Amino acid sequence: MTRSSRTSAPPSPPAFPCPPYSAKVGHCQLFQNPEARSRVIDAATTLGRTTGLVLVDCSATYDTVNLLKDAVDHGCCVVLANKKPLTGAYEDFQKLVSNFRRIRFESTVGAGLPVIASVTRIIASGDPVSRVVGSLSGTLGYVMSELEDGKRFSEVVKTAKSLGYTEPDPRDDLGGMDVARKALILARLLGQQISMDNINVESLYPSELGPDAVSTEDFLESGLVQLDRSMEERAKAASSRGNVLRYVCEIGSAGCQVGLKEVPKDSALGRLRGSDNVVEIYSRCYESSPLVIQGAGAGNDTTAAGVLADVIDLQDLFQKTA
Amino acid sequence: MTRSSRTSAPPSPPAFPCPPYSAKVGHCQLFQNPEARSRVIDAATTLGRTTGLVLVDCSATYDTVNLLKDAVDHGCCVVLANKKPLTGAYEDFQKLVSNFRRIRFESTVGAGLPVIASVTRIIASGDPVSRVVGSLSGTLGYVMSELEDGKRFSEVVKTAKSLGYTEPDPRDDLGGMDVARKALILARLLGQQISMDNINVESLYPSELGPDAVSTEDFLESGLVQLDRSMEERAKAASSRGNVLRYVCEIGSAGCQVGLKEVPKDSALGRLRGSDNVVEIYSRCYESSPLVIQGAGAGNDTTAAGVLADVIDLQDLFQKTA
Repeated sequence: MTRSSRTSAPPSPPAFPCPPYSAKVGHCQLFQNPEARSRVIDAATTLGRTTGLVLVDCSATYDTVNLLKDAVDHGCCVVLANKKPLTGAYEDFQKLVSNFRRIRFESTVGAGLPVIASVTRIIASGDPVSRVVGSLSGTLGYVMSELEDGKRFSEVVKTAKSLGYTEPDPRDDLGGMDVARKALILARLLGQQISMDNINVESLYPSELGPDAVSTEDFLESGLVQLDRSMEERAKAASSRGNVLRYVCEIGSAGCQVGLKEVPKDSALGRLRGSDNVVEIYSRCYESSPLVIQGAGAGNDTTAAGVLADVIDLQDLFQKTA
Repeated sequence: MTRSSRTSAPPSPPAFPCPPYSAKVGHCQLFQNPEARSRVIDAATTLGRTTGLVLVDCSATYDTVNLLKDAVDHGCCVVLANKKPLTGAYEDFQKLVSNFRRIRFESTVGAGLPVIASVTRIIASGDPVSRVVGSLSGTLGYVMSELEDGKRFSEVVKTAKSLGYTEPDPRDDLGGMDVARKALILARLLGQQISMDNINVESLYPSELGPDAVSTEDFLESGLVQLDRSMEERAKAASSRGNVLRYVCEIGSAGCQVGLKEVPKDSALGRLRGSDNVVEIYSRCYESSPLVIQGAGAGNDTTAAGVLADVIDLQDLFQKTA
């Protein structure tokens, strides 16, 4: 359910000479080697503007951002599954999307689910988007729907870990930072000129149970159980109001929030079971009843499918028109 | 909820001299007047191949099909909200989509909902679509979810009519032909070389209560009530199996069917309430749990927004690439 750790791959083309990878995952010498970088940019410039060569970034590192910005400067098309270049400095985001028709990043939010494509279509149609609310972590979606059935938080998280649904340290999911990155991409897509610092992210564990204070083993054995009571109380309080708890991102006129939220039991978010992602989009056309997109929001296959669909989509730019 | 009767409008450009409309809705003399037609095609040819002029058909008539085919032949882009040209002879469909990058028809299925765009993305990504199941009539979606609450079929249909949810003669909705047209477009998009004759369409009223035998008034006053018992029995039988009845189209390896189907109460289709459309897309990536798109599937605003998004999308073809 969580995307498996992806190694940094040389963007493209595959046959291009690339220095050997360093051992560290998420780090590739290409981006530190000026000569290699300049050769990638040269190839991208020569081929990219006329043939539709697309630079694809499926890494999970900030290290690619300068290469990507150079490529965009040279008129090259870019497809990202990597969230990091879009969630750093706002100026970097602005530069990367400066030629919006030449960049696609569907797989950064909900893997292959057509979330970015749909929001982009709605914006293009002149229908103003007022609010986007989403459950964008399969792991936290699973945890929240299990909690609804009266199970203990600590047990549910341990089960999720044993099923391979969580990162090796479940706090990487419970902290909400991955959801916050997706939320930031959506918020920026909707025109909010904000950064991670502007997002209120609610972590599901307190700082005294954080990685700096407690080892993963201790967190699993004795830390988690300390959270059971407050989670149970919150779930019960929600239930008494006909609601359920979901870990959501919410982007609207009040900015961008990430955390637990009570949602009506019979809404798309409230009906969510298991590990699917779900996104509700509210606009003038979809005002009282939102446009809803739901499905598996992680996994290698769906991520790759989203990247490939983006690449194919960009080829419209390179059709002979006359 | 049902799209209001749309008059045939001259496709484009608005300033182009067009013969006066005939009084009959769904019929425009433009398409019968060889001189006017040739002038539209001339303009389309001159402007369409280089400037991105798009021929937009928001009528509800078959009469436009030859004009559209000529336009496609001349390399012009086409956007359709009109289902009819895509649901006639298979050869017409084939000709219209022969340059698939130059045609868009999102608003023919689910108005502005990104159904066609999403199916096209999945196909482009190489992910084979195995099955599409959808509730594509807001009217019948409303009727079926009310029926689930134990209400009488005849009462629900009359309420739907009084709310303006149905066509003036509700049999236009209950017969399923509008759903069948949408199903045919989806089936053809998925590669099925079929026509309306190949679709098994279940009507919710028998032929002895059809428009040839019974007036609208008589149908509403004494015809509808004759259907209550069998509908109640079917709804109860579904309920006894943990299912609910939905009026769906289903496109899969067994072809294309339109009619009542029992679906699990906890599926996206089963959870549907009110007049939203919902489409479940099953593919290799979305095998056990489908990709679901849900929202208002009719209405002037959403239809217009879908058309406009299609027009904007086509403009990628006319970007200077070098």
